[in-house]
Amino acid sequence: MEPDVGGSSPPSCTKIMNKKIFKPSSDLPLGFTDRQEEELLIRDLLIFNIKKIMSKYGFQYLETPSFEYSESIGKFLPDKDRPSEGVFSFQDEKKWLSLRYDLTAPLARYAAKNFDNLSRPFKRFQLGTVWRNEKPGPGRFREFLQFDADYIGTNNLFADAELCFLISEILLSCGLKTNEFNIKISNRKLSKGLLEKLNIIDEQKQSIALRAIDKLDRVGTEGVQYLLGKGRKDKSGDFTKGAELEKYQIKEIINFLNIKNLSEKNYENIKKIADGNKLMEEGIQEMQLMEKYFLLFNFQNYIFDPTIVRGLEYYTGPIFEANLTFSVKNNKGEKIEFGSIGGGGRYDDLVKRFNNQDCPSTGISLGLDRLIYAIVQKKIVKAEKKLPILICVFDEKYMSFYTKLLVALRERNISSEIYSGSSNIKAQLKYADKRGCNYVILCGEDEISKNLVTIKNLNIGKKVSENIKNRNDWKQSEESQKTIPYEQFLNEFIK
Amino acid sequence: MEPDVGGSSPPSCTKIMNKKIFKPSSDLPLGFTDRQEEELLIRDLLIFNIKKIMSKYGFQYLETPSFEYSESIGKFLPDKDRPSEGVFSFQDEKKWLSLRYDLTAPLARYAAKNFDNLSRPFKRFQLGTVWRNEKPGPGRFREFLQFDADYIGTNNLFADAELCFLISEILLSCGLKTNEFNIKISNRKLSKGLLEKLNIIDEQKQSIALRAIDKLDRVGTEGVQYLLGKGRKDKSGDFTKGAELEKYQIKEIINFLNIKNLSEKNYENIKKIADGNKLMEEGIQEMQLMEKYFLLFNFQNYIFDPTIVRGLEYYTGPIFEANLTFSVKNNKGEKIEFGSIGGGGRYDDLVKRFNNQDCPSTGISLGLDRLIYAIVQKKIVKAEKKLPILICVFDEKYMSFYTKLLVALRERNISSEIYSGSSNIKAQLKYADKRGCNYVILCGEDEISKNLVTIKNLNIGKKVSENIKNRNDWKQSEESQKTIPYEQFLNEFIK
Repeated sequence: MEPDVGGSSPPSCTKIMNKKIFKPSSDLPLGFTDRQEEELLIRDLLIFNIKKIMSKYGFQYLETPSFEYSESIGKFLPDKDRPSEGVFSFQDEKKWLSLRYDLTAPLARYAAKNFDNLSRPFKRFQLGTVWRNEKPGPGRFREFLQFDADYIGTNNLFADAELCFLISEILLSCGLKTNEFNIKISNRKLSKGLLEKLNIIDEQKQSIALRAIDKLDRVGTEGVQYLLGKGRKDKSGDFTKGAELEKYQIKEIINFLNIKNLSEKNYENIKKIADGNKLMEEGIQEMQLMEKYFLLFNFQNYIFDPTIVRGLEYYTGPIFEANLTFSVKNNKGEKIEFGSIGGGGRYDDLVKRFNNQDCPSTGISLGLDRLIYAIVQKKIVKAEKKLPILICVFDEKYMSFYTKLLVALRERNISSEIYSGSSNIKAQLKYADKRGCNYVILCGEDEISKNLVTIKNLNIGKKVSENIKNRNDWKQSEESQKTIPYEQFLNEFIK
Repeated sequence: MEPDVGGSSPPSCTKIMNKKIFKPSSDLPLGFTDRQEEELLIRDLLIFNIKKIMSKYGFQYLETPSFEYSESIGKFLPDKDRPSEGVFSFQDEKKWLSLRYDLTAPLARYAAKNFDNLSRPFKRFQLGTVWRNEKPGPGRFREFLQFDADYIGTNNLFADAELCFLISEILLSCGLKTNEFNIKISNRKLSKGLLEKLNIIDEQKQSIALRAIDKLDRVGTEGVQYLLGKGRKDKSGDFTKGAELEKYQIKEIINFLNIKNLSEKNYENIKKIADGNKLMEEGIQEMQLMEKYFLLFNFQNYIFDPTIVRGLEYYTGPIFEANLTFSVKNNKGEKIEFGSIGGGGRYDDLVKRFNNQDCPSTGISLGLDRLIYAIVQKKIVKAEKKLPILICVFDEKYMSFYTKLLVALRERNISSEIYSGSSNIKAQLKYADKRGCNYVILCGEDEISKNLVTIKNLNIGKKVSENIKNRNDWKQSEESQKTIPYEQFLNEFIK
């Protein structure tokens, strides 16, 4: 596990000081990114809202660690195009550890570990980073921030319905409008029952078929047809092996996928397809019960869509998917349909893996980075950046006066700083410009000897500042600047 | 990299359903932990305070990713007792990636990558998890939450002084008192200059000697003497090889370590030891300048302590260490001195590694998990847990009434939930007890037919609830409970 950086090993600090310089790359690995203040402030706001809603709904706050034993979180990932099957794993002493790829598998582990002490149904929420060791590509990240809310230990579908309503409340709290998103609903029992009814019992075939159905949005009906059959070649020439189903099986599945939009008529259609299949009929009943609960919440912003499968293999019942229905620009400036920002479903057998006890459960996840991206693009939430007042330094010998100003400002919780570099006043003003400061405080011998403070409003004086040659230039000629007694200077910033 | 879980691989969900059960462990890997609501709420409060202070001080918010190229963050860790030298690393395509072990090395990478676009000095803060692949032991975690604030691109020691003052302000904002912590100050130029003066020029010897000095607190003067000499055997019998210095060298180093507590007299003592060594004299001047700035901030809560070295190899100038000076109980219930919760220092050559440009920098880190542990033990901050009002379910057919209550409560931002399991009323009351609810709402046929609501205060009625046999028992006999018209029920919860 010793990192090998292309033959030469990273240098120690002493080596650098001895000028035997090894120049490492300042690049980031593909699939990872630096996040800036604006995005982080919006994220904080979003998380604040989410926590408020969680507390209102009675969910408990929990945090499981980044690492789990690989065996504990299992292999439930949809994409298997990487050697370690989508997960970052390390060998530790004798066992393998993995970075969590979602927050659900660790929750199941937690619930099993604390089974007897939990008040069940155990309602918990978690916010945390998850990692996917996927093939990196443009805009395809390998770590993302997720929000999860789950019910552990209940088979009551009211929980499932409430979770859908909850997603809706969170999205509304972001400033999204009802017509800008919807929750798509389906049930694994429908797709599984259908496969059962069509006599597709081979595990691998089932799995490939479910994944094919899941790809309808991306590859279209024809693409799904290929994936259910021999396989499909994508634009890049990569070939994905298909489920190799019979023609009549493919036809029935496509038939099933064509049923969208929940209405009595469609239920009739599915019932026809179910043709007495028990699992499918259970699925239909569950859909109808959830509809009843939606009505209680006066929640209408959902769509029945049998094509949603949600990649993860552990789902057993109702499944949900939250979609943003507007277009955004991708990094090439092209308009694209935003699509899914999360979802979830029922996973009745996940805790049971550990302790063989029944513990039906259900939950949702939201991808916060994607949601923030959407919010930023829609410009519905503005981050309130606090920009510091810059106190310029004319001479080290005045530091005592500057610190007095600084302490006074900060005591009033006003964002402020003394210029902390070692350049001249011109460079300090350039720094203030670049930093986006609204005000600078300029006190030299003239001011300090008379206990005065000069304040310059950069928003007014921005254009002029470039042409300043000496201190008198800006001191006398600009209305953007005023000199006032020390005792009054705080009033300029307290509105 | 394929996880191998002791011969048998984790099962797929389908396998579970077919009852070929593989039972994974619900344990956590050593060095990782689940964190509960109380701790998380205190953490949120702490982070809220820190962000407020950061904004006041004019620091920008940044987030670098968890992973970096291994070569980018280098090998600056003090502990090398693990095969991958303290870092979680893995191979990705051709290059090695590592989880960050601190927030400073990634910041240097970020600064180099964005060198020309940054307003310098660039003041940034970051909150984030860091990982250390250390030998796990009791209470020794392998992931922890860190807060960092740094100045990139300034040699102005005002920055270093302000950072010490900043740590102090953060600790005070946690409710700690001035006499419960201090900031220890030293300068790498003192220890490095001393080694230089003593003609200890071998890199490895320097490194071992610095690490020996760093261990003074843990191993005592005698221990350091051994570590500077042939080596030291610890209690467990493990032997640490020493720096193998000469006797006179060891004597002078121990002599130097005995100088503590900043005062004019001690400066004289160090000057004597420096004996004209340029590096040491620079170190002394820097200490004196920082003292001057501390005075401007009226900051007195610091101690000059030449024994602090701070493990990381990249420091070049002033170094700081924040210590809590009270005792806490460890997990065995023993009282232990709390000690360091963070620190930092100047690292003038870290950005230069990437672009060969001068970029003197300085920064601090605080270990938030440890700080929270201390705060919890001191009981100075209380987390405000919101406990839901539980609406009990007598019968599925009343769900419409219950949902009406629920929606009304939540519209007022009152934490509430409808019981989401499928057990009887007695179990529902037990759930409310275990969950810590203050109120339950109990509406059966009697109430609902008359549009009434029964509210039970569990704080009053806690002891009685265990003995309830039927609904009339609690309904009639307890003062802890009242039945009021629906129109008035909200008033019971709005104070």
